Amino acid sequence: MRLALQAGWEYQGLAYPNPGVGAVITKNGKLLCIAAHEKSGSSHAEVLALLGAYEYISGKTIEFDRQNAFLAHQFLRSLPNSFFKDCTAYVTLEPCNHTGKTTSCATLLIDLKIKSVYIATIDPVPSHSGGAKRMQESGIDVHIGLLQKEADELIEPFSIWQKRAFVLFKLAQTTNGRITNGVISSEVSRIHTHKLRSVASKLAIGGNTVRVDRPTLDCRMIDAKAPDLFIYTTDKDNIDKNIPLFNIQNRNVSLGDNLDFLQTPSFVLVEGGEGMLKAWQDKIDWLLIYQAPMLDSKRLSYNIDMKLKTLHHKNIGDDLIIWSKKI
Amino acid sequence: MRLALQAGWEYQGLAYPNPGVGAVITKNGKLLCIAAHEKSGSSHAEVLALLGAYEYISGKTIEFDRQNAFLAHQFLRSLPNSFFKDCTAYVTLEPCNHTGKTTSCATLLIDLKIKSVYIATIDPVPSHSGGAKRMQESGIDVHIGLLQKEADELIEPFSIWQKRAFVLFKLAQTTNGRITNGVISSEVSRIHTHKLRSVASKLAIGGNTVRVDRPTLDCRMIDAKAPDLFIYTTDKDNIDKNIPLFNIQNRNVSLGDNLDFLQTPSFVLVEGGEGMLKAWQDKIDWLLIYQAPMLDSKRLSYNIDMKLKTLHHKNIGDDLIIWSKKI
Repeated sequence: MRLALQAGWEYQGLAYPNPGVGAVITKNGKLLCIAAHEKSGSSHAEVLALLGAYEYISGKTIEFDRQNAFLAHQFLRSLPNSFFKDCTAYVTLEPCNHTGKTTSCATLLIDLKIKSVYIATIDPVPSHSGGAKRMQESGIDVHIGLLQKEADELIEPFSIWQKRAFVLFKLAQTTNGRITNGVISSEVSRIHTHKLRSVASKLAIGGNTVRVDRPTLDCRMIDAKAPDLFIYTTDKDNIDKNIPLFNIQNRNVSLGDNLDFLQTPSFVLVEGGEGMLKAWQDKIDWLLIYQAPMLDSKRLSYNIDMKLKTLHHKNIGDDLIIWSKKI
Repeated sequence: MRLALQAGWEYQGLAYPNPGVGAVITKNGKLLCIAAHEKSGSSHAEVLALLGAYEYISGKTIEFDRQNAFLAHQFLRSLPNSFFKDCTAYVTLEPCNHTGKTTSCATLLIDLKIKSVYIATIDPVPSHSGGAKRMQESGIDVHIGLLQKEADELIEPFSIWQKRAFVLFKLAQTTNGRITNGVISSEVSRIHTHKLRSVASKLAIGGNTVRVDRPTLDCRMIDAKAPDLFIYTTDKDNIDKNIPLFNIQNRNVSLGDNLDFLQTPSFVLVEGGEGMLKAWQDKIDWLLIYQAPMLDSKRLSYNIDMKLKTLHHKNIGDDLIIWSKKI
């Protein structure tokens, strides 16, 4: 389950509006595949893990697009009955119980006659849940609650953006907490930021940063649509409309200091420094820090008092990526 | 092998003068046990992993002190011939080839008729190595070089302290790089520091810290012998000998600014702030940072320019522990 959680964190936020979910398939205690749900509209974690397990067992390679959920379900259902009968699935979130273009993941696992399913936490959205119960009633050995606290942390953004905006504040800093003056983080970190921008409902940025840096704030590193922008400023007439960010097609830019839009269920990414941290401190849910491995004496630090809880950390290129929660 | 490396890092520095080593035992692809060498004079990683694998396979619990290498070897040799014949060992460092109170680990693995051994890196000390070759000649399926770079990083302190002092600079900071004014890190982090102090050849500290903080610098949290001290100062007569650190039995305290002792093979732990970082920057091999999950506006930051490479990071209590190398 720890491996499934780790996999889920790889795509934290990126599957918006879906939650981060990871899955692992084992057979007689042997690990066959680890997978995660990568993007809204594509195959769920348990489906990808089953496809990987098929490849491991059969020694064959899947030729179709495994992110195509319809093809993936169809393929898994075409396998000999009982292909997965000795397998166990570990899923960080209850398999879905929703029939759309495909049958639900719960139905798929039932029909594939998988032996047992470990679920870390139940889907918090009532209309999505019920999969565990159905699997149990169909004779699958279902266990609920393994690493539940960790799984609830993984889907906290999802739980929040059901009700209101989930606010993720992004910072790039050196090991000794310096944030100003040019690019600090590695290219891999910046690509990751562009991926988050590309799925976020809105990117919020401080007016002073816009005035000084004159940024573009697009997703050019991954060739995706630039996010809609909210420029936080109390002086909205004092922003030069020739700044590149205004010249991007299909982008909505709003300005001001009214944060009522945060009441709308959505995913708001905030990029800024000390000023934005202070102005938004009551609104921030999580912090995302890219920490570059260097000590620096020239850049400026940032002053604010905030207690955090570290949720997840890993290497991203040469940097550390640290997800934490404001407590 | 990744799991073995992670296990080895858990005891980084703590097995001084031995290296950090991790080992994993599998059987038909199934993970049976993960273990690490914890302390000089006690059982090696592969021996502990074999004991754990025995417990897993047999369902029995070992009653003797598994850290007693003599008892551990004796027990493993008493098992039915071929108990481990389908098992594979993953060891981050070549099994030792040295006979002392027990036969070498290489001989043990040969006599236990283990099927295969994956070794990440060969022992850099010529008089210790040769185990891989002997195992190969005895018919074990030996593979060398899996994650070798990572394994070489794990034992870099060991490679260095063969020739001269390995200098580890320890810092406790907030997420935004603040280091002054009282305790920052969690109790678990401070216990870890006391463990490192208890094995280090010497603890080095700045004269100003001694004058201002009047510390004890012992290992009271783990009830171990306080380390010998080196107080780095250019004004060695200006230190009050009533400071608690001077009143600890069996402790040697030296003072001055002569760092020639760093030419002696040893493990020197340095604790300090900006002043010591600047004074010792050319001598530092690695940085050990305990990063407490908080942003702070009152404490001071530290100014220095240094490029780092992150080697390992993990949770330690509520903090992050980050091992990095000066590059």
